[in-house]
Amino acid sequence: MTTTPACRELFESAIVIDGLDTSQWGSEATYRKLREGGVTAINATLSVWDGFDALISNLGDWHGWFERFGDLIRPVRSLADVKAAKEERRTGIIFGLQNPAPIADDLRRVRLLQELGIRIVQLTYNERNLIGDGCYEPTDVGLSRFGLDVVGEMNEHRVLIDLSHCGERTTREAIEASEQPVAVTHAGPKARFRHPRNKEDETIRLLAEHGGVIGANAYPLFLPNGYDTTLREFVDGVEYLVELAGIDHVGIGTDFCEGRPPEWFRWVFATSHGHRMPEHLPTLPDPHRQLIGFEDQTHFIDLAEMLLDRGYAEEDVLKLLGGNWMRLLAAVCL
Amino acid sequence: MTTTPACRELFESAIVIDGLDTSQWGSEATYRKLREGGVTAINATLSVWDGFDALISNLGDWHGWFERFGDLIRPVRSLADVKAAKEERRTGIIFGLQNPAPIADDLRRVRLLQELGIRIVQLTYNERNLIGDGCYEPTDVGLSRFGLDVVGEMNEHRVLIDLSHCGERTTREAIEASEQPVAVTHAGPKARFRHPRNKEDETIRLLAEHGGVIGANAYPLFLPNGYDTTLREFVDGVEYLVELAGIDHVGIGTDFCEGRPPEWFRWVFATSHGHRMPEHLPTLPDPHRQLIGFEDQTHFIDLAEMLLDRGYAEEDVLKLLGGNWMRLLAAVCL
Repeated sequence: MTTTPACRELFESAIVIDGLDTSQWGSEATYRKLREGGVTAINATLSVWDGFDALISNLGDWHGWFERFGDLIRPVRSLADVKAAKEERRTGIIFGLQNPAPIADDLRRVRLLQELGIRIVQLTYNERNLIGDGCYEPTDVGLSRFGLDVVGEMNEHRVLIDLSHCGERTTREAIEASEQPVAVTHAGPKARFRHPRNKEDETIRLLAEHGGVIGANAYPLFLPNGYDTTLREFVDGVEYLVELAGIDHVGIGTDFCEGRPPEWFRWVFATSHGHRMPEHLPTLPDPHRQLIGFEDQTHFIDLAEMLLDRGYAEEDVLKLLGGNWMRLLAAVCL
Repeated sequence: MTTTPACRELFESAIVIDGLDTSQWGSEATYRKLREGGVTAINATLSVWDGFDALISNLGDWHGWFERFGDLIRPVRSLADVKAAKEERRTGIIFGLQNPAPIADDLRRVRLLQELGIRIVQLTYNERNLIGDGCYEPTDVGLSRFGLDVVGEMNEHRVLIDLSHCGERTTREAIEASEQPVAVTHAGPKARFRHPRNKEDETIRLLAEHGGVIGANAYPLFLPNGYDTTLREFVDGVEYLVELAGIDHVGIGTDFCEGRPPEWFRWVFATSHGHRMPEHLPTLPDPHRQLIGFEDQTHFIDLAEMLLDRGYAEEDVLKLLGGNWMRLLAAVCL
């Protein structure tokens, strides 16, 4: 896609934030794509099914990568870190957990995770845990008593609550229970594609009413046309969300899985807390296919171009590219 | 013991630091004794044989106690925290590990422990580990390659190295390998009492030459007269250390075990990394006996009185009570 000079100039000035990137970390190629793509900061998934011990090992890996790839990436623990990333032309890494498994049954670990630099934690991942229901459960229970306490603890210790993989009721109850705005970092509207990983309109509206932000998910399996979905159709979805939630409450959450091997896809789609391999499921992901025209981290500028092309004001494009995430992160966890 | 007005005035102004206190934490009675005793800050033992998971649980406990007993104690992570503790008349808690077991074989955890607030870590506890030899080993090997890396990592991430329970050679090699001064938080001179837990004169001299500090241990079993040892005899030992290492390199490390139940003594004296109960050892501690005249945290003022009585200048008494620890902590880990 060609980029107009106006778009390039706007993009150069933009804070670009990806609400969720779950690529294969430690690979220079991926960090380089983030740089080439002009991505200012990402919510980088540190763990999916991992417990505390594995998370500690992942953190150790990351500190090594910050040294080894220091020309491409930097850690983000504060707002100043995001601004520094922009100035230094590095990509800021915000530590996020897709699964609160490292908290296990110990509320006090929320604070300890924050001290270790983790800033975003999802309340449930696909399945039921001690906090609430995941989006693939046959049931749709809300928050447990423990779950309410976890929400309170995340508020107190400034950890952003992510609800992307939660069931509808857990999502809504967490939005209402939280004293701070929350995030759905990577999901879409069920109204456009009825899939467990997407959210009901009323849930998305509730999220926005409480000051939250939803990141439009670019993962093909959760979009109406699956692997045939184009960037243009993805932007249709972004427009739907903007009309539903308002221009201040939408961002991007690509769900990129750059460089992940097939075994990893089987693991994250596994059931029974990662222990039952997912061959029994109706659809399995193709590790080699992404959205057409938004295949990896280098295409954010094409998204900007298309939004400008549709008549969005520059100011609104900046909000969608990262401004809204920045506001939420600054208010809640940075 | 009666306190002169001069001593009381001096003590009121003093920063009093205990180089090691391993009492039963979570007990209000102990925190109250620290307060009544005018103790400004302590190196509080968080774990002895515990691995990472248990340590995480201990940290969770501590954050609860800081809330519950906030009128008596406060966390210390910086120099300002010690000064605040003094002003607020609370006792500052410096997190210390007597055993680096939570590091296991993963160098990168040193940094993560620092992020969790831990400021002092002992390299070995009684037995051999991956770093070096403990003081009760039949052998006396020095630092392993991994041990050298751990020393480097502790230097880089500002964690004070403690060598109290290390073997002589591990102690000396760590003093020389460390780019920062190190501590023997709680031990005495072998020249006064030949016990594995005490140090050779040349080791203590080497420690001082490298800017380190030794805390005179007040635990009766490691002193010449055992349970019959009086505060006066303890001060004889302090004087020996001052003559050997110089007035700038000696502090106090009581090794208080206030409120610890008998099972705990069996556990910390156990062999085989805490798994073989210590009945095969020649001496077992009596949980109910401490030094005569220095039974608990309320007697630091008596120590001050005795030092003044022996003709120590006020300035030197302040160094011994905590000034030397403060200098070392500020330079290395706070």
